[in-house]
Amino acid sequence: MLLSIPKSEFKERQQNFIREASSKKCEASVLFAVADIFYLTGFHFHPTERPIGMFIDPQEKVHLFLPQLETEHAEEYAVVDYVHDYPEYPGIKHPMEYFKELLVEFGFENKSVGYDAIGYGSSMGYRGQPLNELISAEWVSVKGIVEELRFIKSDHEIELIKESCRWGNLAHRLLQKYSKAGYSEIEVSGKASMEATMAMIETLGPEYKPHGQTAFATFRGQVGPESAFPHAVTQNIILKKGDTLVTGAAASVFGYTSELERTMFVEEYNAEQEKHFNYMLAAQDIAIAAIKPGVTYSDVEKEVQRYFKEEGITGLTRHHTGHNIGILGHEAPFFDLGDHTEIKPGMVVTVEPGIYVPGLGGFRHSDTVLVTEDGNEMLTYYPRDLESMIC
Amino acid sequence: MLLSIPKSEFKERQQNFIREASSKKCEASVLFAVADIFYLTGFHFHPTERPIGMFIDPQEKVHLFLPQLETEHAEEYAVVDYVHDYPEYPGIKHPMEYFKELLVEFGFENKSVGYDAIGYGSSMGYRGQPLNELISAEWVSVKGIVEELRFIKSDHEIELIKESCRWGNLAHRLLQKYSKAGYSEIEVSGKASMEATMAMIETLGPEYKPHGQTAFATFRGQVGPESAFPHAVTQNIILKKGDTLVTGAAASVFGYTSELERTMFVEEYNAEQEKHFNYMLAAQDIAIAAIKPGVTYSDVEKEVQRYFKEEGITGLTRHHTGHNIGILGHEAPFFDLGDHTEIKPGMVVTVEPGIYVPGLGGFRHSDTVLVTEDGNEMLTYYPRDLESMIC
Repeated sequence: MLLSIPKSEFKERQQNFIREASSKKCEASVLFAVADIFYLTGFHFHPTERPIGMFIDPQEKVHLFLPQLETEHAEEYAVVDYVHDYPEYPGIKHPMEYFKELLVEFGFENKSVGYDAIGYGSSMGYRGQPLNELISAEWVSVKGIVEELRFIKSDHEIELIKESCRWGNLAHRLLQKYSKAGYSEIEVSGKASMEATMAMIETLGPEYKPHGQTAFATFRGQVGPESAFPHAVTQNIILKKGDTLVTGAAASVFGYTSELERTMFVEEYNAEQEKHFNYMLAAQDIAIAAIKPGVTYSDVEKEVQRYFKEEGITGLTRHHTGHNIGILGHEAPFFDLGDHTEIKPGMVVTVEPGIYVPGLGGFRHSDTVLVTEDGNEMLTYYPRDLESMIC
Repeated sequence: MLLSIPKSEFKERQQNFIREASSKKCEASVLFAVADIFYLTGFHFHPTERPIGMFIDPQEKVHLFLPQLETEHAEEYAVVDYVHDYPEYPGIKHPMEYFKELLVEFGFENKSVGYDAIGYGSSMGYRGQPLNELISAEWVSVKGIVEELRFIKSDHEIELIKESCRWGNLAHRLLQKYSKAGYSEIEVSGKASMEATMAMIETLGPEYKPHGQTAFATFRGQVGPESAFPHAVTQNIILKKGDTLVTGAAASVFGYTSELERTMFVEEYNAEQEKHFNYMLAAQDIAIAAIKPGVTYSDVEKEVQRYFKEEGITGLTRHHTGHNIGILGHEAPFFDLGDHTEIKPGMVVTVEPGIYVPGLGGFRHSDTVLVTEDGNEMLTYYPRDLESMIC
């Protein structure tokens, strides 16, 4: 059972990044994006006002730069050549002054240097200078390189995502079991999540590092008429007989996640709910059938939109059909009319066309799907049919 | 029992922001920071690749700009004058094209326009043009204005933070009760969090909107020797007799949070653990005694650092003494040698000097403290003494 990414794979990823950055004439690089630093080094951390960055010097050595409070943590877990720290933010001497000295020491001056953001950014009270005010170099944006490396998942990544699907499935099964009229969404979600998490940690044991949320299943406020808000937030709503419920379940496994969402009904559904459920299910079938190597993300969206138009329900849609998934819950590319990226084997996507009927509810299933050499494979495996969706 | 911020207070906040932005000669403004948009409008949302922004036009009308899937949600909950939407990201026409048209329509061209970030930013695959490429205006940074308005909490905000402390306290009590040798940190944390959450939602009822995490208590990997990593991450570690534990507990109440952290010991502690616990407790006492209006954040840090130096344990410190708290878990200003902001009544801070002994563990309590007219008031009220810290 694979519960982490091997060290060798992080080193391969670093080499892939260096190759791509070199093709943009970069002799060195500086990165601040949290997900990308995790992807390249395996270092999982909680970002705060204290800047954390990585840099790759002209000798291709990989460095982490972080506050003193992260030093031992990084030395134990990060796959890098050097860890450098600074005392504190804001500190008597600003962290970016230390960063500047390191960049000078490792030969960044007057080089062509790739960067993903021109400075560290945080909502938690951070202020600081941009890189181009710190040292003289030719700054070249490499934003997007790591994101594109992340498009196609390795076998190890696919294994972690499958493990995530397994525990998301259990959490969802329990959520359905506990979804009864009279109970609060928070209670049902908490009970299902806790029970699935317990099974998960007892099974996986102390080697399991979540690097994110352990098994959970939730409604996120999508209960009854409020389910018509596709991105609602948890509100402690009490479930009622006949409510439409839109759910979400997953689990983080070494930082990798998946997505399983279902449209369910408390005890019973009426003809209107059935009709819209069937539209949604047909749209998801159409999308899944369309996903294969060689077509574009926009091609899949076009098929779905054509169906909605034929049925005259385009006005009930609120969003596109899905997106890549892996380290982040939403990753590019998108099943969107404006995204013409070609679909390739190894991509892992969510398939979740939705329709929303004010006053009645939302109708959306989401499944996690792996693109294979000749089509696709559903990684989530929860029932999708109407009769299985009654709580 | 107050469970939300009244609409009138959001309108006051908007007027305060407009006044401060005007003092920087801004005739209009554009903001993207999620916490600041919530502070000004009460609109709580999950940020994704789809841009969300707010703008205030030259007639002082407040607008939200968001993807179609958030429209009804915003129309129901946001305290704004207008909600505008765009179909989707990336879309056939980019969201920023719609944004540009709105800014032109509402008279932003050739005005002096405040902004907090020069474009929308997201790690979730977003790409788009900066504001200054969209329309011609004099762009004036107003970054920090809302952050500074947030420094001093209103009576309503203090009530919400107190409510948060209450449920964090319960979660922590249960965490201590369930912390026994042989149990996984995830199990103990999950059980305590679930039980506290249940009590919380049954007490507060359906009016309770968390806008964040319901009551929880956790170790975040700070168990045994790993507790010496001040910002460790959850790892499913099994508790052992004699382990040092560093905890954290809180609850979100309408988006407001608090911080309660304790250093505990499983069944017993040895002389080394006792010695370092006592250093930590003395340092926290010193910090709490120093917090009052008129002194600076750095003054408090100096007192703590002086004590550590006297005891010869400066080498065991890894971070400064604390920070403001409210909508975000960490907010500026900071109890840091480099932060000379004056402490004022109504500020709510965390007090959490820590020391870290490799191989032995970490020692840190954190309390949430309100600055009053003549000193301070502890809002968290969990016991702090050594004998109360045995699990």
